[in-house]
Amino acid sequence: MASKLIAIIAGVGPGTGAAIARKFALAYPVVLMARKPDNYDSLVKEINNKGGKAIGISTNVADASSVKSAMGKIEKEFGSGVGCAAAIFNASSGFVRKPFLEMSETDFTTGYEVSGKGAFLFSQATLPLLLRSLDQSPQHPPTLIFTGATASLKGGPQLSSFASGKFALRALSQSLAREFMPKGVHVSHAIIDGVIDIPRTKEWMKDAGPDAKIAPEGIAESYWGLHVQPRSAWTVEIDVRPWVERW
Amino acid sequence: MASKLIAIIAGVGPGTGAAIARKFALAYPVVLMARKPDNYDSLVKEINNKGGKAIGISTNVADASSVKSAMGKIEKEFGSGVGCAAAIFNASSGFVRKPFLEMSETDFTTGYEVSGKGAFLFSQATLPLLLRSLDQSPQHPPTLIFTGATASLKGGPQLSSFASGKFALRALSQSLAREFMPKGVHVSHAIIDGVIDIPRTKEWMKDAGPDAKIAPEGIAESYWGLHVQPRSAWTVEIDVRPWVERW
Amino acid sequence: MASKLIAIIAGVGPGTGAAIARKFALAYPVVLMARKPDNYDSLVKEINNKGGKAIGISTNVADASSVKSAMGKIEKEFGSGVGCAAAIFNASSGFVRKPFLEMSETDFTTGYEVSGKGAFLFSQATLPLLLRSLDQSPQHPPTLIFTGATASLKGGPQLSSFASGKFALRALSQSLAREFMPKGVHVSHAIIDGVIDIPRTKEWMKDAGPDAKIAPEGIAESYWGLHVQPRSAWTVEIDVRPWVERW
Amino acid sequence: MASKLIAIIAGVGPGTGAAIARKFALAYPVVLMARKPDNYDSLVKEINNKGGKAIGISTNVADASSVKSAMGKIEKEFGSGVGCAAAIFNASSGFVRKPFLEMSETDFTTGYEVSGKGAFLFSQATLPLLLRSLDQSPQHPPTLIFTGATASLKGGPQLSSFASGKFALRALSQSLAREFMPKGVHVSHAIIDGVIDIPRTKEWMKDAGPDAKIAPEGIAESYWGLHVQPRSAWTVEIDVRPWVERW
Repeated sequence: MASKLIAIIAGVGPGTGAAIARKFALAYPVVLMARKPDNYDSLVKEINNKGGKAIGISTNVADASSVKSAMGKIEKEFGSGVGCAAAIFNASSGFVRKPFLEMSETDFTTGYEVSGKGAFLFSQATLPLLLRSLDQSPQHPPTLIFTGATASLKGGPQLSSFASGKFALRALSQSLAREFMPKGVHVSHAIIDGVIDIPRTKEWMKDAGPDAKIAPEGIAESYWGLHVQPRSAWTVEIDVRPWVERW
Repeated sequence: MASKLIAIIAGVGPGTGAAIARKFALAYPVVLMARKPDNYDSLVKEINNKGGKAIGISTNVADASSVKSAMGKIEKEFGSGVGCAAAIFNASSGFVRKPFLEMSETDFTTGYEVSGKGAFLFSQATLPLLLRSLDQSPQHPPTLIFTGATASLKGGPQLSSFASGKFALRALSQSLAREFMPKGVHVSHAIIDGVIDIPRTKEWMKDAGPDAKIAPEGIAESYWGLHVQPRSAWTVEIDVRPWVERW
Repeated sequence: MASKLIAIIAGVGPGTGAAIARKFALAYPVVLMARKPDNYDSLVKEINNKGGKAIGISTNVADASSVKSAMGKIEKEFGSGVGCAAAIFNASSGFVRKPFLEMSETDFTTGYEVSGKGAFLFSQATLPLLLRSLDQSPQHPPTLIFTGATASLKGGPQLSSFASGKFALRALSQSLAREFMPKGVHVSHAIIDGVIDIPRTKEWMKDAGPDAKIAPEGIAESYWGLHVQPRSAWTVEIDVRPWVERW
Repeated sequence: MASKLIAIIAGVGPGTGAAIARKFALAYPVVLMARKPDNYDSLVKEINNKGGKAIGISTNVADASSVKSAMGKIEKEFGSGVGCAAAIFNASSGFVRKPFLEMSETDFTTGYEVSGKGAFLFSQATLPLLLRSLDQSPQHPPTLIFTGATASLKGGPQLSSFASGKFALRALSQSLAREFMPKGVHVSHAIIDGVIDIPRTKEWMKDAGPDAKIAPEGIAESYWGLHVQPRSAWTVEIDVRPWVERW
C-alpha cells in the first residue's frame, strides 16, 4: 500500500463503519472519525498492527468547528496537499421513536443534526480533497458515499425525526451527485434496509434463521464496489438487505 | 358559514397561500399566518368584507415561541376548545441556489429551518385542534396539508438546501399520515411542480403560451378536494403541474 | 344536462366503474363498456330513468376488433363528430396469484392483456374523440384516467402477472401524459391502494372497523376532481386508500 | 475454472451481453443466447480459445418452444442435473418511438414481447437450475439479473411500447426477488441510464467528452459485484450511468 491518497470514514463504530474502514485500509491510509475515541481506538491499533495505516480523530460531524479541527489534523498528518480517494459518511443520529405529540423540538431536530447538517459539513470539508485527488493519478475515481436507511424512502409512524434526517441526506446526496459527478467525483447513496449484525443486535431476530441480519462486511464490499466503478458506469444508489427481509 | 371549526393557513403571501385562504374562507373562519403582516393584511380585510371571517397573525413558524404565541391568539379569538377543520402548511424558505462549496452553514440549513423544523412546530401546534374537531361533528374529516415542490422528489444541482428541507417535509408528512390517519386526521402532501403565477413571476415564461404557469386557484381547488375526501378514500400525495410542464 | 360531449367508461362492474358512471352521468351522456352486459344493464336503466343518458356496449378491450366495433356504435349513437369529455379506463384482468414456477404462459400474460394491450387499444380509440372535444367548447379539459392498484408500484411475491400488467399501464399513462398534455388532454393515473367496498368483498375485513374498505363513490369523486382541474394545475397521479390502510 | 455450475446469458450482442459473458466466463462455462448466431459466434470462439468454455444457442426468448429447446440443449451439453450460478436476462426489444396515434398494435406489444413475456419464459426456465445449484456448494449465491433502462422508471413521450415492456420487467424482477430471495436466489435489476459504447453508437455523443458513453465492461463488473454479494447483504436494484449523464 503505497497510496498517497487517503480514505476518510465518519461514523466508525462496531459495525458498518469498522468494516468499511478495514476494507478501505487495504488500499489507503484511513482516517476514522467518531465522537468517542472508544469507537475507533482498538480499530486504529488493529489496522496499524496489520500493516495498514490508520488514525482516529474525535469529531462531532454536526459541529462546524469540530469538523474544521479534524481537517486540520488530517493536513498535519498527511500534508496540506493531501488528496482523498474516498470519503464515506456513515454517521447517524440516535434513533428517536415516540408519539409525535410527545416529541420535543430537540427530539425532532436530532435526526437532521447529523444526517442533514453533519453530512453537509462533512461533504464540504472532504470534497476539496476528493477533487484534489483528480490531479494525483488516482487508481479509481474519487468517491463520496452516504449511508442511508429504510427511512430514507419511507417515513414510518413515530419516526419523523429519523426519517426527515435521512430524507434530507438523500436530497443532499442527489444534489451533490448532479453537481460533482460531471467534475469527476462519484457520489453515491446506500439504503441499508435491515438490521445490521453487531454486538448490540446480537439477541435480535434469533428465530429468523442464518444470515437474517446484514453482515457489515457485505456492506463494505458493496461500498468498495462503488469506489472501483469506472466513471463511464457509475451507480448513484444501491439498496442492501438480507435475503429474508420483507420490503 | 356557521362553522365553529376554523382553518389555519401558514405561509400566506400573494400566491398559493392567498388562494387557499380565499377558498377555505368560504366554509370556515380562517387564520392566516405569515412573518410579515403585509403578506396578509389586505387579504384579511378582503375576506371580512366579503362576509367571511379572517384574522392574521404575524408568525415565524421556525420559532417555537412565535408559534406558541400564535396558538394563544387563536384560542383567545376562538375559544380554548376550538377545533380545526384544516391546517395547511404552505410556508417555504428562501430559495438558495449556489455552488455547494460556496454555501455557508446557514445557507444550507435555511431550507430545513422552515420546511423541517417549521413544519414540525406547526404540525405539533395544530394536530391537537384537528383531533379535537373529531368530537365536534365536522362536515369533512380534519385535514393537514403540506406544500411541497419539484425538489421534494429530486435533489437538483446547487439546490441541496432547498431540496433537503423539502425532502424532510415529505418525510414528516408521510410519518404523520401513518400515525394520524388511523386516528381520523387526513394528512396529505402536494408536489407543486412548476412556476406559480404570481406578481413576482409575471415576466417569467412569457413565451410558453397561455396557462404555462400554475394558477394558485387551481392549487386551492385541489387542496379543497383533498379536504372533502371521505375517510374511506383518502389521497396522501398529489402532484400539480401545468399542462406544458416537462417532467 | 345538455352536453354534446360524452364520457366513456371501460370496466364497469358493481364497484368503481358504476360509481364513476353515476358521477359522470350527472354531466355527460355516458357510454359503459364491459365484456358482459350483466355488468352494465341495470345501471344503464338506472341512469336513463333518473334523467341521464347511458348506453352499454359489450366490449372486450383486449381485442382490437371489439374496440373498433364499440367505437362504431358510439359514432352511430352520438354522431361521427362526437367529442369526448372524459375517457376512463377502469378495466382490469383477473387476479392471478400462484407460485411463479406453477404459472402458465397464459397466467403470466393475463395481466398485460387487459392492463397493457387493452389500455393501449382503449387509449388509441378514445384519444381522437378527446382531442376533438377541444374544438367543441368543453367546460373542462378532456380527461383520460387510468385505474391502477397497489401493484402499480410494487411487485409482490406470486403477483408477477398482475403487477407486470399494472406497471405497464402506469408506463403507458406517463407516456401519454407527456405526449398529450401539451396538446390539451389531461392524462392521469390513480393508484387504488386498498380493498374496494363491493358486494364481492362484503365479508372481508369485518374486524377492521368502519370505512376500512374504499367506498367506490370516494374514488368517483376524486376522478371528477381530476376532470375539473384547469389545465394550469393538473395532477397526473393520485393515490386512494382508506384511513386505516397500512402502506 | 473447474466449476460445474454454468452461467446463462440471454441477449448477447456486441455490447453489454458480450462484456457480461466475458466476465462470467472467467468463473463459469457460459451459455450465450441470441436470436442470430452472428451475435455470439465469434465470442464463443474467443472464449473457448482463451481457455474458457462457451456455447451459443440460437434462441427467441419470447417463444416458449424456442426457450424449451434451448434448455434441452443445455442439459444435453452439461447434464440433466446441471446447476446455474448466474442467469442474466439482457435481451431487449427493438426501440419503437413514434406518435402514439400512429402506432400499430404490434408496435405497442413489441416492448412487452421480449421484456415481459420473454423475461417470464427465461426466468421460469432458469430458476429451477438456479435453485438446484444451492445443493451443489456454490461459491456465491445463485443470481438472476435483469437489464433495465431509463424507461424502467419513466414513460417518455412516444415511448409507451418500450417503457411498458421495461416497467413490466421491473415488476417481474421485484416479484421474483420477493418470492425467491428467501429461497436463496439473489434477484436483481439494473437500470442502465445512458448510451452504451458499442459499434452502433460510435458516432453518437462525440462532443460529450471522454467516457460519456457507458463502457459495457463497467456494467459487467457491476453485475459480477451483484453476483458475489453474500446473502446477508443483497442489492435488488442498481442504476448505472456515465459521469456526465443528466438525470
